[in-house]
Amino acid sequence: MSILVVGSIALDDIETQHGKVTDSPGGSTLFFSAAASFFAPVNIVGVVGEDFNFSHIEFLKDKHVDFKGLKVEKGETFRWGGRYHQNLNQRDTLYTHLNVFETFRPIIPDTYKNSEFVFLANIDPELQLQVLSSIPSPILTVLDTMNFWIDGKRQELEEVIGQVDVMILNDEEIRQLTGTHNIHRGAKDLLQQGPKVLVIKKGENGAIMMTPDDYFSAPAYPVEHVVDPTGAGDSFAGGFLGYLATCSKLSNENFRKAVAYGSTIASFNVESFSFKKLQEISRQDIEQRMEKT
Amino acid sequence: MSILVVGSIALDDIETQHGKVTDSPGGSTLFFSAAASFFAPVNIVGVVGEDFNFSHIEFLKDKHVDFKGLKVEKGETFRWGGRYHQNLNQRDTLYTHLNVFETFRPIIPDTYKNSEFVFLANIDPELQLQVLSSIPSPILTVLDTMNFWIDGKRQELEEVIGQVDVMILNDEEIRQLTGTHNIHRGAKDLLQQGPKVLVIKKGENGAIMMTPDDYFSAPAYPVEHVVDPTGAGDSFAGGFLGYLATCSKLSNENFRKAVAYGSTIASFNVESFSFKKLQEISRQDIEQRMEKT
Repeated sequence: MSILVVGSIALDDIETQHGKVTDSPGGSTLFFSAAASFFAPVNIVGVVGEDFNFSHIEFLKDKHVDFKGLKVEKGETFRWGGRYHQNLNQRDTLYTHLNVFETFRPIIPDTYKNSEFVFLANIDPELQLQVLSSIPSPILTVLDTMNFWIDGKRQELEEVIGQVDVMILNDEEIRQLTGTHNIHRGAKDLLQQGPKVLVIKKGENGAIMMTPDDYFSAPAYPVEHVVDPTGAGDSFAGGFLGYLATCSKLSNENFRKAVAYGSTIASFNVESFSFKKLQEISRQDIEQRMEKT
Repeated sequence: MSILVVGSIALDDIETQHGKVTDSPGGSTLFFSAAASFFAPVNIVGVVGEDFNFSHIEFLKDKHVDFKGLKVEKGETFRWGGRYHQNLNQRDTLYTHLNVFETFRPIIPDTYKNSEFVFLANIDPELQLQVLSSIPSPILTVLDTMNFWIDGKRQELEEVIGQVDVMILNDEEIRQLTGTHNIHRGAKDLLQQGPKVLVIKKGENGAIMMTPDDYFSAPAYPVEHVVDPTGAGDSFAGGFLGYLATCSKLSNENFRKAVAYGSTIASFNVESFSFKKLQEISRQDIEQRMEKT
């Protein structure tokens, strides 16, 4: 079973209390792929500029990540600059330069069209709708989004929500989407609108999964040295969907386990800048940490 | 096995998005007792003024809560006024009138001195030390405190911390006490200073327990109608210590279960103003909710 991911690829300048990196490879697509590829082949659709150094992602090829859908366009790669507070749940965006990502239109290579699992990373909901219309019969579609689209393209976003199987979001996004302060009530509302499964990310407090007939809370592994939280959500999604792609049945039990895998992989990801830690570890390291939580 | 609790008894004026109450019975001692008395007899040490209406706590007598250590002094009961934001994790204190609580000195009746379990609710650490010195051989002592004492009476507080078995606190208190932003590292530091068990309360995100050789994360029951969060921490402590008082062995497994009981009882408590909900429910209701989390 293979996974299609469509989202951003970025070069980040990031500062946390543990240091500073520049031109650090990131973006939802790469964090997701670095995580999901522990489990299943991943097909990437995205765009980079001529400044992108492919040696950074060479390791993904060995992990069966396919770059056929990755376009190189004239100009610079999407760049994001951010500075985290001592409280790593807070950060300031220093700048966002969309560059080649501004005119990104996802073109799905024919060989990707039979991807069974689809991750719609955080991009314009209009583009997410295009992606969905290109994949005739996915087994499972998973949606991520952010406050920017909830505010700015609500109608299109609601259309996407009506078409996906799983939505991954955080407390604030549930509140903003549903206008309900209590996240459990808000989550129930959202489960009426399309998705059969909601995964609520809670950062250092783990994650919750809700379906119409299941409720599951997965703790986060207690990371003592959080170096950089960037990509935690996307690596979570990668672990989550990656694990599901290995399952013969999408049972509640496997969804629960997928949430735990997502949480575990995210806990590794935050231990380094970029996805360096995910490059270093093996599937066995993941299993060992799974046993501890 | 009986439990001694020493702390405040209050009349609260509280406003949340779900309504407003005045002269509502509260304070750490009563929330704790309403919860712990589902499991074991509770001995209360505290003070109220002449304005206190005992009919509010009459039900506790039927649940084997002993009021011998409850003094009635001339003057008014401790009063607290608070208003919660729509985000129930934030509140403004409108006023704090210590009244008779200002000169409270805990006097432990002789019949209480063989209490096996002791809960030092959030009061002046100097008084907490006095309580500890009055109980010759407790099986388990549990400490609660707050930022006010961490700032104002750190030395005395550290002395208490050095003498107790369990400390219940939240993320911010760990950071303030240890100067370490990462709560897992902070918790490890605290485990070097006396307590053998730390319980970290995380509100709607449940609770974590850490010992030198165990780590356990208990989810919170997903409450859809939080009416008033006041007393959540103390009812948690009551469920936690109450359950432990029924155990023949203080094993890791029983500590884990105690955290789950604390979390479950707190989830009931926040469904009403004061401890009304805890008055209504039975032990069976608690067991049913335990099975669901």
